Amino acid sequence: MLEKMDLTKKMDKETYKAKMEELQAKLGELQRECKNLEIPVMIAFEGFDAAGKGSQIAELIQALDPRGFEVHAVKQESENERMHPFLWRFWTKTPENGRIAIYDSSWYRRVLVERFEKMMTKEQLGNAYTSICSFERQLADGGMAIIKIFLCVDQKEQKRRFKRLLKAKETAWRVTEADIKRNKNFDKYLAINEEMLQKTDTDYAPWTLVEATDRRFATVKIYTAVISALTASIESAKRRAAHPEVQLEAAEHYDRELQSSILSKADLTKTLTKEEYKKKLKELQGKIAVLHGEMYRRRIPLVLGFEGWDAGGKGGAIKRLTEKMDPRGYVVHPTASPNDIERKHHYLWRFWEAMPKAGHATIFDRTWYGRVMVERIEGFCSTQEWQRAYKEINDMESDLVNSGAVVLKFWLQIDKDEQEKRFKERQANPEKQWKITDEDWRNREKWDQYEEAVDEMLIRTSTPKAPWIVVEGNCKYYARIKVLQSVVDALEKRLKK
Amino acid sequence: MLEKMDLTKKMDKETYKAKMEELQAKLGELQRECKNLEIPVMIAFEGFDAAGKGSQIAELIQALDPRGFEVHAVKQESENERMHPFLWRFWTKTPENGRIAIYDSSWYRRVLVERFEKMMTKEQLGNAYTSICSFERQLADGGMAIIKIFLCVDQKEQKRRFKRLLKAKETAWRVTEADIKRNKNFDKYLAINEEMLQKTDTDYAPWTLVEATDRRFATVKIYTAVISALTASIESAKRRAAHPEVQLEAAEHYDRELQSSILSKADLTKTLTKEEYKKKLKELQGKIAVLHGEMYRRRIPLVLGFEGWDAGGKGGAIKRLTEKMDPRGYVVHPTASPNDIERKHHYLWRFWEAMPKAGHATIFDRTWYGRVMVERIEGFCSTQEWQRAYKEINDMESDLVNSGAVVLKFWLQIDKDEQEKRFKERQANPEKQWKITDEDWRNREKWDQYEEAVDEMLIRTSTPKAPWIVVEGNCKYYARIKVLQSVVDALEKRLKK
Repeated sequence: MLEKMDLTKKMDKETYKAKMEELQAKLGELQRECKNLEIPVMIAFEGFDAAGKGSQIAELIQALDPRGFEVHAVKQESENERMHPFLWRFWTKTPENGRIAIYDSSWYRRVLVERFEKMMTKEQLGNAYTSICSFERQLADGGMAIIKIFLCVDQKEQKRRFKRLLKAKETAWRVTEADIKRNKNFDKYLAINEEMLQKTDTDYAPWTLVEATDRRFATVKIYTAVISALTASIESAKRRAAHPEVQLEAAEHYDRELQSSILSKADLTKTLTKEEYKKKLKELQGKIAVLHGEMYRRRIPLVLGFEGWDAGGKGGAIKRLTEKMDPRGYVVHPTASPNDIERKHHYLWRFWEAMPKAGHATIFDRTWYGRVMVERIEGFCSTQEWQRAYKEINDMESDLVNSGAVVLKFWLQIDKDEQEKRFKERQANPEKQWKITDEDWRNREKWDQYEEAVDEMLIRTSTPKAPWIVVEGNCKYYARIKVLQSVVDALEKRLKK
Repeated sequence: MLEKMDLTKKMDKETYKAKMEELQAKLGELQRECKNLEIPVMIAFEGFDAAGKGSQIAELIQALDPRGFEVHAVKQESENERMHPFLWRFWTKTPENGRIAIYDSSWYRRVLVERFEKMMTKEQLGNAYTSICSFERQLADGGMAIIKIFLCVDQKEQKRRFKRLLKAKETAWRVTEADIKRNKNFDKYLAINEEMLQKTDTDYAPWTLVEATDRRFATVKIYTAVISALTASIESAKRRAAHPEVQLEAAEHYDRELQSSILSKADLTKTLTKEEYKKKLKELQGKIAVLHGEMYRRRIPLVLGFEGWDAGGKGGAIKRLTEKMDPRGYVVHPTASPNDIERKHHYLWRFWEAMPKAGHATIFDRTWYGRVMVERIEGFCSTQEWQRAYKEINDMESDLVNSGAVVLKFWLQIDKDEQEKRFKERQANPEKQWKITDEDWRNREKWDQYEEAVDEMLIRTSTPKAPWIVVEGNCKYYARIKVLQSVVDALEKRLKK
């Protein structure tokens, strides 16, 4: 794609001024419209060193209301960022609905500079492309406008610019040895960029290639591309609003009898006596404390998700699990319905935010699986959205595992009678009354629907690398021990590697 | 996904009979509706050996009008199939609009059996997944209903079935050594299947996992899945018909001045004298004859695409190119507007059909690039469709190159005056009058629109592995020699590998 570009393109001052006046007014107007329609926008700037990313961003924001955008300079990963999957820092920096985020170099750094520096294996490179495409598709499916700008100059022009920068003390520091190295090996670096462009030039997140030899020309082209992309996003947001996705009638053809009945097969008669429980608990908690320390030392992150019926015993199990763990090394993350800020982001955003850094553990009390349970059942999202979510969730967990994490998901299973018993106990006990609400009783009425959704979820998202563990929970002692034992087994297995 | 399946599921005869009566009637009705709405349907059956793919297909077609479906048994590739990219045989077997194609084992064979037999490298495996996902996405975007059924039995049940088959002479032949081997290494083969399911379980082509221990249960589940998928496709076809995709207003923001002006930069003063031409022609034709033979011997396929302005000299260049080539080793494939049958398929289908087998050459006089030129300009497809096409086309060419082919694309460039001169010559010459039609004059009026579309196409689809070569064509001698020289260079380079 790059070799065909005509890098002699330029624009005279008068044309530039005339065009810019109109373009700036238009862009300002579109920003306001995006805000009203709650469209989030990401604009990524990539391209060769000294092609002018910084100054073009400075030009672009001239037209923007500063209360509505942020600029992220993407340099080498910080220590904290390095301790997460590489997309973590971009997930957490996705703009909220109605806002614009601009990236001076972006998530493509991974497959460009870092690849050039041979900082990754072939397998990691393949995974990085898969992750990037999945990242962009998920955001685009969620309504994000994604604009990707690639600034192009040739080897000579780049060298000329470096020389000019090096001449003055005030600018010389901007040219690094790595820059010079890439200029010398321009063809090699060009080939890496070319492959990147080809692999990631999609209809939902297309590249705009910009001839950047002449700064005025490049500015006008970038403005035009951004205006065109925002106009398209606004049109399609209006179309979506006029014809919203719906719960498909087809979904009703589902026949409960035909699903694997995972939950109903769980053997809820499994029990432990109090003595067995106490003995086991002590032993396992001791092991977990040691293993947790070892995970910290070896910098392995741990993600544990807890789901289950209301009153299924999640809280109790989490409490026993963490009792002897070093509190500096784990966080328990309770998940409620999304707050105002969370609601303005992709549904996975708040979970990405909470993912542990290397060596730490995050324990989620309720998780991202809400998408395919409560949101599905209550119609908080469309059929298309929850059906898409299985793959989105598998992709997220796969990113976590690929970055070294241990990921386990627990379903705490009890039967309907046991739930009723526990609900009533809670109501009768003044100290526990806060734990039981009308909503719990309403959810209980939808038991069958939940069972259907959970069975489907368990099938579609239990993977060898991030398995679901169904915990037979009628006996709390049994359940807690099974959770602890499963964690011990998984950690021991991982630490043997 | 597989480990969570409950393989004890079964269904008694009475329930089965009652359900099937209703399901068969419903499926028949949906088939008729798909026919009316011109929805094409692909149903792929995968799963463990002896899980009952064959008999389940036999059950499924009971409900179908035999005039509306075909069944493809997918075995090891035939010699002819092996000489094409692995998806070629599936592209060419995609059903036409309104018809159902059923595959007894499918395009997944590549990443299952063939992978298990270690018939491919890691890189080929990665490419195969990319190709499969692109294949399904392209077809789904084009309106195909894709239903993927995975039949599951466990190792014990499989062994039991093999034993039963082996007992009787009439059925013993159906159990191969490879089957036995996969049964013995069940866990290893299971892991391969698990990875495949996870990588390809998408919203546009989801898997239905079927517990296949009990045949009745499996049949009912398959019927239900097919009915549910067809209902969803029908709903969404109706939605699309009610709210068709359109040419976006946003596309109008495009500013011609801001594009790389590749065509207008072509130096059309380049010429050759008749003497130079004759000498060069003889030399290059000789080389091509030899290289073509060598390509045949080494089984390397060659794909050449010719595009250019009307009267740009495509025909003349192709004639000189092929003059000394062995006619048994090449085909010239003229591309007109699609005929009735072609119109009932994906727009790339007819080009896949025509792709050369290993060692052969296909020369396309006009190509799949019509999608982003004439179809874009005349509004024969929506903005979304032609914008999507760049990636679809790059993916197709990438499949060809990955399977070993040499792919070159020529744009024959002339200026507007030269075209007028040639049009008038044609009109004046009784022998050439057939070459010029009113449509040529009408297209000429859209010169600027075409130039814009072509410049964008050249940027977006010229890749190092499948480059565009712009041929300066005002002087026919020069143009023909440049075409021949480019082919010679590319073949020599490839044969050196």
